[in-house]
Amino acid sequence: MYTLVLLRHGESVYNQGNLFTGWTDVDLSEKGIHEAHEAGKLMQREGLTFDVAYTSYLKRAIKTLFFALEEMDLLWIPVYKTWQLNERHYGALQGLSKLDTAKKYGDEQVMLWRRSYDVLPPSLTKDDERYPRNDIRYKDVEDKYIPLTESLKETVVRVEDYWNREIAPQIKDGKKVIIAAHGNSLRALIKYLENIGNQEILDLNIPTGTPLVYKLDDDLKPIDKYYLGSEERTEQKIEKVADPGKIME
Amino acid sequence: MYTLVLLRHGESVYNQGNLFTGWTDVDLSEKGIHEAHEAGKLMQREGLTFDVAYTSYLKRAIKTLFFALEEMDLLWIPVYKTWQLNERHYGALQGLSKLDTAKKYGDEQVMLWRRSYDVLPPSLTKDDERYPRNDIRYKDVEDKYIPLTESLKETVVRVEDYWNREIAPQIKDGKKVIIAAHGNSLRALIKYLENIGNQEILDLNIPTGTPLVYKLDDDLKPIDKYYLGSEERTEQKIEKVADPGKIME
Repeated sequence: MYTLVLLRHGESVYNQGNLFTGWTDVDLSEKGIHEAHEAGKLMQREGLTFDVAYTSYLKRAIKTLFFALEEMDLLWIPVYKTWQLNERHYGALQGLSKLDTAKKYGDEQVMLWRRSYDVLPPSLTKDDERYPRNDIRYKDVEDKYIPLTESLKETVVRVEDYWNREIAPQIKDGKKVIIAAHGNSLRALIKYLENIGNQEILDLNIPTGTPLVYKLDDDLKPIDKYYLGSEERTEQKIEKVADPGKIME
Repeated sequence: MYTLVLLRHGESVYNQGNLFTGWTDVDLSEKGIHEAHEAGKLMQREGLTFDVAYTSYLKRAIKTLFFALEEMDLLWIPVYKTWQLNERHYGALQGLSKLDTAKKYGDEQVMLWRRSYDVLPPSLTKDDERYPRNDIRYKDVEDKYIPLTESLKETVVRVEDYWNREIAPQIKDGKKVIIAAHGNSLRALIKYLENIGNQEILDLNIPTGTPLVYKLDDDLKPIDKYYLGSEERTEQKIEKVADPGKIME
């Protein structure tokens, strides 16, 4: 049996401001930093340890991982960063206020972007400064993988690819793995691991900064899962994330 | 022409307490954290950027690198950690007060450990909790490389090996590299790069948290070097490091 831990980054300054984030590289809020340290302490108390860590190219996940590993005295383990674990790209919505967007496009349209598996948010144009091709960190990523916008369906494709190519072999090799990532890249991974339906997955909400422990069988199929921390606290957090204004990040 | 930056970690809590450190995994002091951020700001202002970073298995170097990269908005670059960039191992002196050691063994003996290229400090025994074999982070390191004590000569061997095997090929491949490490592992590297003599190298003191920029030719031979920051400030720092009580760390 293998153990895998998923950790959604702590609150970011955009979560706080209720803005669409996606690939925008916003920092953790003070609360987010605190959540990251708390996550590390929880894992430490649980007796968890890791041989290798994976995270995205975005600092809110990288820093969450760093602060958690610091609490566990595991700063020395290898940390692999990849654009494939980035948050879902929200296209031209990135940086916009969720309230303003609902006013502009109507609640129904915003619901469709939020609650569809394969409907794309408005696309960026290639001259937009938010287009990832214009960001040096994606210089080694092939054009065909650089999104102008993304549905969850496309996020699933890139997360699944990275899981099968890089992470799964490490786990099967006996390595204890933690993945620090984002609401939708983790949702994408969970969809794949648990074989959850396209609509059903949209009802799954992952609280920030709360370690999600999976027990996997020899084929990496989940046989158990639980969040660390008091049940009460985690449930409160899940409700907060499920709030319509909060869900897309 | 290639650019390479070496960065010695900021002040640690052992530097502060004037204790022998070596492979002891002590944290940065508040001042050390500040130095790390300042180093990042200096490099940012200088217009430096990096494609890849190297550091040791010790948190004072890992954190210095992290805070510096954070200031440069480069947290997303690959960071490779290796025991081969660790500080020189100080054997049974690790954790002891420098003053007490001088009282116990005499100034002359301490001078010999400090100012010889190949004299070993007192050795650990294998049942000592400070023996790295008893620390999980070195589990993948072969027995023959696990030190009970080290002279600078031995530090040079492992640093040189890692440089030639891992770092030099990256630089020749056009990657901009930063190495965040320790007083003696950086001294070892500089000895190799500049072909400095065994005695002469012991007079070279590297200030904490001060980026040292090298310009290298096609064969990675240094053609220029300078510290970032005001000349006055760096010279003050070098003097402080050269103080007998401070030099071994």
